[in-house]
Amino acid sequence: MEPLLHQVRQRVFHSLHKSLNLLQRNHSGCAEHAAASAPSHSRHIKPTLLVSRIYQPSNLRDVGQESRVAGEMTCKSQRLMQQAGLIHPSNPGCYYYLPATVRSMEKLVRVIDQEMQEIGGQKLDMPSLCSADLWKTSERWDLMGKELFRLKDRHGADYCLGPTHEEAVTTLVAHQATLSYRQLPLLLYQVTRKFRDEPKPKFGLLRGREFYMKDMYSFDVSKEAAYQTYEAVCQAYAKLFARLGLRCVQVQADTGNIGGTLSHEFQLPADIGEDRLLVCGTCSFSANVEMLSSDTTDCPQCKAGTLVESKGIEVGHTFYLGKKYSHIFKASFSNSQNKPTIAEMGCYGLGVTRILAAAIEVMSTEEGIRWPGLIAPYQVCVLPPKKGSKVHEAAVLADELILNLEESLPRLRGEVVLDDRTQMTVGKRLKDASRLGYPYVIIVGQGALEETPSFEVICQQTGETVFLSKDGLLDLLRSVETV
Amino acid sequence: MEPLLHQVRQRVFHSLHKSLNLLQRNHSGCAEHAAASAPSHSRHIKPTLLVSRIYQPSNLRDVGQESRVAGEMTCKSQRLMQQAGLIHPSNPGCYYYLPATVRSMEKLVRVIDQEMQEIGGQKLDMPSLCSADLWKTSERWDLMGKELFRLKDRHGADYCLGPTHEEAVTTLVAHQATLSYRQLPLLLYQVTRKFRDEPKPKFGLLRGREFYMKDMYSFDVSKEAAYQTYEAVCQAYAKLFARLGLRCVQVQADTGNIGGTLSHEFQLPADIGEDRLLVCGTCSFSANVEMLSSDTTDCPQCKAGTLVESKGIEVGHTFYLGKKYSHIFKASFSNSQNKPTIAEMGCYGLGVTRILAAAIEVMSTEEGIRWPGLIAPYQVCVLPPKKGSKVHEAAVLADELILNLEESLPRLRGEVVLDDRTQMTVGKRLKDASRLGYPYVIIVGQGALEETPSFEVICQQTGETVFLSKDGLLDLLRSVETV
Repeated sequence: MEPLLHQVRQRVFHSLHKSLNLLQRNHSGCAEHAAASAPSHSRHIKPTLLVSRIYQPSNLRDVGQESRVAGEMTCKSQRLMQQAGLIHPSNPGCYYYLPATVRSMEKLVRVIDQEMQEIGGQKLDMPSLCSADLWKTSERWDLMGKELFRLKDRHGADYCLGPTHEEAVTTLVAHQATLSYRQLPLLLYQVTRKFRDEPKPKFGLLRGREFYMKDMYSFDVSKEAAYQTYEAVCQAYAKLFARLGLRCVQVQADTGNIGGTLSHEFQLPADIGEDRLLVCGTCSFSANVEMLSSDTTDCPQCKAGTLVESKGIEVGHTFYLGKKYSHIFKASFSNSQNKPTIAEMGCYGLGVTRILAAAIEVMSTEEGIRWPGLIAPYQVCVLPPKKGSKVHEAAVLADELILNLEESLPRLRGEVVLDDRTQMTVGKRLKDASRLGYPYVIIVGQGALEETPSFEVICQQTGETVFLSKDGLLDLLRSVETV
Repeated sequence: MEPLLHQVRQRVFHSLHKSLNLLQRNHSGCAEHAAASAPSHSRHIKPTLLVSRIYQPSNLRDVGQESRVAGEMTCKSQRLMQQAGLIHPSNPGCYYYLPATVRSMEKLVRVIDQEMQEIGGQKLDMPSLCSADLWKTSERWDLMGKELFRLKDRHGADYCLGPTHEEAVTTLVAHQATLSYRQLPLLLYQVTRKFRDEPKPKFGLLRGREFYMKDMYSFDVSKEAAYQTYEAVCQAYAKLFARLGLRCVQVQADTGNIGGTLSHEFQLPADIGEDRLLVCGTCSFSANVEMLSSDTTDCPQCKAGTLVESKGIEVGHTFYLGKKYSHIFKASFSNSQNKPTIAEMGCYGLGVTRILAAAIEVMSTEEGIRWPGLIAPYQVCVLPPKKGSKVHEAAVLADELILNLEESLPRLRGEVVLDDRTQMTVGKRLKDASRLGYPYVIIVGQGALEETPSFEVICQQTGETVFLSKDGLLDLLRSVETV
């Protein structure tokens, strides 16, 4: 196996040395790269992904000095993600997302896009720099206090870094004087980086100061229509978490400084959770404790069950806003009698990086990451034998197997990595694979050399180990969902 | 055709009214959405995309007051993009990217990802909030002056909003004490929002204060290896622009405040361009004027040709950095003698939103947008007849055609829109389609009703109009490239 770039280099046309020396000596320019029409471009077949080349820096594995110096509290998901080279701390509450995390996050965003677009959501992208004027108009410039990152531009104008975009989106919609009731409901969403100057950032991606959020905003003709939209979004959220295999509880919640009259949180039950929930043992009732008086123990819905307290990580939040923002910013539409009418709004957030970390928090063991299969960075890791071992000639069969898998199962292209660190024992590499949590680990050893080749497959989600023929393996992996 | 959300509503299980009233009256909670395992999820077949529902606000079409009030200069691409509902001005140099722009940008990012990963690039994501300490260490905290957006957090610590990430990435790599020469070259890149407090933002997305950039950073064992990487990236850039069908000139350039000793710009020749280039009429020489003495007219390379000045829009920039940053931040690796050695670096930028606008600038007519086909927001627009016209019964054939296209050509799923605004004449909708620049417009009219149905197809990239049978149409569209 050649390093990736090495392969590329062999394809580079010009003698680089020559042209670069030339450049420095006499200002010779590079060739003009002109193309009136694009060359036909076939689907990329990527070279094999090698574990030795994937940037998951191993000595960043110990939870770094930085996070301790900053006095931040850590938790299991943060520790595991730092150990596995998934994230690296930068400033307090700010992280580098390393390549495996970016892969996982991009998958999660694809799932979110599918579910939001299924209910008519349209994706846009709003500036992070938000003018103070807008926030003063909504009175949140003062209300947000120190949570808002504020700055001035070179002309002295005040801005904040958007932690949420009710003001921005409502202003946008208000600009469209011709908006008709026929165009409603309008659901606009974005997946962007948000900023919040948390007093105590902690728990890695669970409570950071810079994070990715999906925020959607809805505009409806009436309260009834807005409620229907609200319910459609809640259903989409439920479906999303179900697809991820995450148990999620939808609880009644306070509306906080967003405002409005109705709100739900989507909580993943977890000991590390900062929210306290009251869940009825008998019926479906559940609420954030802040919604009930402190001594409530009987369920207010079924009157029969007892409320049990549990902790949760908030991964989503929905708000029925009514006319709070649309009134202020004059976001109106022409109704069926052609009269201007203020729109009814809702807003709906999902913490993208938080879902990632929360899923790892609830699914992992103390020793190894477990992912929602759909969004694991890679689906399969293939382990060839140790260099110089008795079965080392099985190594070539590992390469073959990968080609085979990617040819037979196109969905797995780019999803299979080869742990080529064959100077290490299979056991050691298996331990790493367990720590990183690839859903499927395939050991290519003695069995692969036999007349009817077989492969040891560890399904890390279930903990099962099975021995399969190549056809059996293909059947197993055919059922793997990807996004 | 039903509005998208309306279809969804028919699928919503619960009577919303009832449950919401209940919620407000007695704190009844919503059902728990639990799922131990995700349900098997088939590939989404999206409902037909209707032009009447796509958020491209038509009264934002006139270049808004905002940009004039701010005194910004406008240009063709900005005017066309605002008229077509692709962007909307927010603050000076900041824009809302509306849904069609987001679609196009996501496609462009996929092309960039393919080309960067083809040469071994690994995608990560670094914080926007950059600590002043890092920038003071590199001495760019002062050097950048007013271009840097600066802010303080709640504890009074200084930050800037990253306009580029040499400091951040070099620090990250420096943390990995075990980095071996075997792991180099290491190519790390991100596609993120960048911030630059331009003195005079202008030309829409061409010179903004908040924009998307792809920035890649390379780490190599030696100067020679770094030059090879440099050339591999330049080749990848050339390939990228060729795939987009854009004529791009690679010119020698100044290294500015990034530093280093070798630099090239990738320029799209355009009258609106802010860079002045000198291009030889005889050989391949080209350079930014700032690289030559002002009175140079003879080509310094071939000595035969004359240099002709043209203007260009800078869409990419490459820098060989040497050890400038790696020395400061101590980014080292163990060489083959196991000795710590400072890495050789390069950095490579592509203006993502700028490429989008620049492509529109150079490809469009004064009246209508023309896209690089590969990244057009939608590939096909189908126009059914006007309501109440003589051929109105062909409308159902338009619906059928779309189902047919998406079934026969899976790559076009989500790429075909129906202009259902049948209260408008075909002529008027055709004018809109020309303004938006769908690569293919299909008129379903009289011909579709004949015994051997035919369709009028306008290929907007070439300006050709052809009449095709359904099979002919499928053949034509089969060749459409998507990403």
